[in-house]
Amino acid sequence: MEKIEIRDATVVYLKKPRLKNPVLVEGLPGVGNVGKLAAEHLIDELKAKKFLEIYSSDFPPQVFVNADGTIKLVKNEMYYAKRKSGDIIILTGDFQGMSSRGQYMLAEAVLDIAESMGVEMIYTLGGYGLGMEVEHPRVIGAATHPEIVKTLEKHGVVFKGEEGGGIIGASGLLLGLGMLRGMRGACLMGETSGYIVDPNSAREVIKVLTKMLKIRISLASLDEKADEVKRITDRIKSIEKSMIEKKSGEDLRYIG
Amino acid sequence: MEKIEIRDATVVYLKKPRLKNPVLVEGLPGVGNVGKLAAEHLIDELKAKKFLEIYSSDFPPQVFVNADGTIKLVKNEMYYAKRKSGDIIILTGDFQGMSSRGQYMLAEAVLDIAESMGVEMIYTLGGYGLGMEVEHPRVIGAATHPEIVKTLEKHGVVFKGEEGGGIIGASGLLLGLGMLRGMRGACLMGETSGYIVDPNSAREVIKVLTKMLKIRISLASLDEKADEVKRITDRIKSIEKSMIEKKSGEDLRYIG
Amino acid sequence: MEKIEIRDATVVYLKKPRLKNPVLVEGLPGVGNVGKLAAEHLIDELKAKKFLEIYSSDFPPQVFVNADGTIKLVKNEMYYAKRKSGDIIILTGDFQGMSSRGQYMLAEAVLDIAESMGVEMIYTLGGYGLGMEVEHPRVIGAATHPEIVKTLEKHGVVFKGEEGGGIIGASGLLLGLGMLRGMRGACLMGETSGYIVDPNSAREVIKVLTKMLKIRISLASLDEKADEVKRITDRIKSIEKSMIEKKSGEDLRYIG
Amino acid sequence: MEKIEIRDATVVYLKKPRLKNPVLVEGLPGVGNVGKLAAEHLIDELKAKKFLEIYSSDFPPQVFVNADGTIKLVKNEMYYAKRKSGDIIILTGDFQGMSSRGQYMLAEAVLDIAESMGVEMIYTLGGYGLGMEVEHPRVIGAATHPEIVKTLEKHGVVFKGEEGGGIIGASGLLLGLGMLRGMRGACLMGETSGYIVDPNSAREVIKVLTKMLKIRISLASLDEKADEVKRITDRIKSIEKSMIEKKSGEDLRYIG
Repeated sequence: MEKIEIRDATVVYLKKPRLKNPVLVEGLPGVGNVGKLAAEHLIDELKAKKFLEIYSSDFPPQVFVNADGTIKLVKNEMYYAKRKSGDIIILTGDFQGMSSRGQYMLAEAVLDIAESMGVEMIYTLGGYGLGMEVEHPRVIGAATHPEIVKTLEKHGVVFKGEEGGGIIGASGLLLGLGMLRGMRGACLMGETSGYIVDPNSAREVIKVLTKMLKIRISLASLDEKADEVKRITDRIKSIEKSMIEKKSGEDLRYIG
Repeated sequence: MEKIEIRDATVVYLKKPRLKNPVLVEGLPGVGNVGKLAAEHLIDELKAKKFLEIYSSDFPPQVFVNADGTIKLVKNEMYYAKRKSGDIIILTGDFQGMSSRGQYMLAEAVLDIAESMGVEMIYTLGGYGLGMEVEHPRVIGAATHPEIVKTLEKHGVVFKGEEGGGIIGASGLLLGLGMLRGMRGACLMGETSGYIVDPNSAREVIKVLTKMLKIRISLASLDEKADEVKRITDRIKSIEKSMIEKKSGEDLRYIG
Repeated sequence: MEKIEIRDATVVYLKKPRLKNPVLVEGLPGVGNVGKLAAEHLIDELKAKKFLEIYSSDFPPQVFVNADGTIKLVKNEMYYAKRKSGDIIILTGDFQGMSSRGQYMLAEAVLDIAESMGVEMIYTLGGYGLGMEVEHPRVIGAATHPEIVKTLEKHGVVFKGEEGGGIIGASGLLLGLGMLRGMRGACLMGETSGYIVDPNSAREVIKVLTKMLKIRISLASLDEKADEVKRITDRIKSIEKSMIEKKSGEDLRYIG
Repeated sequence: MEKIEIRDATVVYLKKPRLKNPVLVEGLPGVGNVGKLAAEHLIDELKAKKFLEIYSSDFPPQVFVNADGTIKLVKNEMYYAKRKSGDIIILTGDFQGMSSRGQYMLAEAVLDIAESMGVEMIYTLGGYGLGMEVEHPRVIGAATHPEIVKTLEKHGVVFKGEEGGGIIGASGLLLGLGMLRGMRGACLMGETSGYIVDPNSAREVIKVLTKMLKIRISLASLDEKADEVKRITDRIKSIEKSMIEKKSGEDLRYIG
């Protein structure tokens, strides 16, 4: 008779890169998928290499099927890119933890990894849901230390200036739990309606982040995605408009 | 004062058979009960012997009462059958894990057992719910490696050819978590309405599986079960039809 | 910095009695509270002594306030009574575990205790909900072994004779998990409407149990409780009847 | 490959004060926020110093944003104040545990800390929800020992004198679990509607507590808060009244 205990998360190292003063950038699924879009853009543009996968019983018990019929287990992933201005680790993935306990556990697992690699600064990326369309999204900020707030303000990041707002999920926890380990960090939230996947908002977040990281990357592919989303939403709006016009025309005929 | 901790699962070995290159076949309750029907058919036809039981706090806290008044605790079970073409282990049971955590834990427990017995290949069986009746169910596939996809295609298994589908529960997790241990595997999903227990779909799954395993077994009892289900559903349909006709007859009289 | 882990249950021994071939009798809250009523009656009539308390994080996070203003934490309790025909341990309490995991954990904790005291036979007591009033409740049974079924049948216990029924909660788990430890046991379920606390049903369960245990105890206090419940339900029925009559009288006047 | 386990709570000591016969006072969020208001008032008036923080995966996975743009992880906190009449430890925080398991675990963590500092007496503060407005809230009590009940009665605390009430959450558990460690304690619950944050009720609780602790503190700031809440609720009532009057005036015109 054997007793089996639940393992909450499994970390698989594909390689263990040696990095110089790396910063950690987090972009997981969330409001408008802003954080994930930004992180994926960064991975593409920096040609970042995957070095680690995180599997967890707090993700859905599910595999995805690829176009070629093969499968992949849902997971989070960490990538790295070496840069003269300082190496970069990027965290992204399919899901955030589903439960409160899992959120904490996964954040601690990520921080254990980050700490072991020498990370002292964390940027978490996300969306700031407005519930209505926003043409020129601003980037809302929060940070672990007042001097980071000041630096971000210089780069156009907006701080609300009032107590009580909250950041829920990995973007909040990585900073909050990181502080307990003496880490520093900032959360960059692009304004977004929250109704659609929002590359337009992700681009604004990337603009601030690249200034902070002192790197330059092309925004062309995010621009393209933003244009495509705009084309689709414009088409939907025009269909809605013509339906309303048609309907009021019908109504007129009906009344007349 | 004593402190008690939860044990998540208990594995009870009835015997420890020595097997040659065994494959693991999983068929637990799910859509149309296709996987469980197929696994049970395999156990019956191969005269497979039970060697192991898994009890878990992630199953309902429940016992079943047998016809003779005795009870049995809800569980999963593993059987084995020795074949010249390669030994076979079959996993079936009363329930899948109820929570996401339990699903992962139970899949890991099964993989621990399978690994210790030398399993390198896993077949997971299930239903593919269509939400409507299907006369000639196809078998939809997914696999851990492209070459398995190719072999399955030769046996008539259909691959969707588009990204994004998901396999939820034990049939997905055993493959996904198995890959992390270097195992290979395939999921065979028989198309089914999802509304009834579907031996017709289970038969198609078994046909593919036996070709892959290079074994021959009778399908007669699945044919019988399929006929019985057809008889029952036909009777229900005919009752429904006559009720509709009677009702429209009444309506006519009422109108006239 | 300290890390704290959850403890799932705490067992507090008030004393450690030495018992001869004790049987375990369980009666926790459930359908019609039949099991708990029966267990409490047994404790009173046998003048059983409390020797152990079980506290658990799977009970509600709650204390009760006594009439004198003092408090008591919710718990389960175990009592013992020494009898020539064999010693008896009785388990009762305020709650059953709230989650499936907790149900399993608490059942294992109770079995650990029972095993350490030499228990080989378990009686679990409960209600069998019918959803309608029952004047002469029968006792429905289930057991771990066919020979126990036969003995119970001699004492008038009814067995359904068909597969598929289930016993949910402690009354099922203690037997099911006990079997894995080589223990024997029976579940005695008194028929009850399930709508009210039912001493009438508890009495029938006690009658069978005392025959099995070869003990004699007075049923007077259960008779009294049953009479009181009958008085209350009769009064409610008579009020309902007069309200219906009054209403139909009003209706007649209204129509007339 | 690394396995990660969940840590349920993390206790961070800012300092380890040496205290003489300290009592523990708990005031966490709850009905009318009475307990938290009272605890915060005590901290302010006693100029108590924070010495410890508790973080837990049973709190929401969230950080708060301060007015200056910095963040703080949700937590519980413990403060101490040295007094000739006996030192005082005060527990307050952003949240109580969200699950039953977490409630138990956090209460045990607090008791571990309290025990290690020599605490033998605990006061838990909370609101007693009436569901209707109460002008002169009484303080309802419960205690671990009859002699504490008597002392509290002398200070005007009301005891219900009937069995069956329950105290849910930290205010109940700290006393119930504390008793298992030989600690003594009392729960002081200020009557409150439960609909608003209620400094008026908190003041009555503080009055009793300070008598029990033989300390004197100003109630001025609680009086101010109570006045402010009264001003706001009076304004709301007057708006409601004028709306009702306006509406009935409109109705009259409409009918006339």
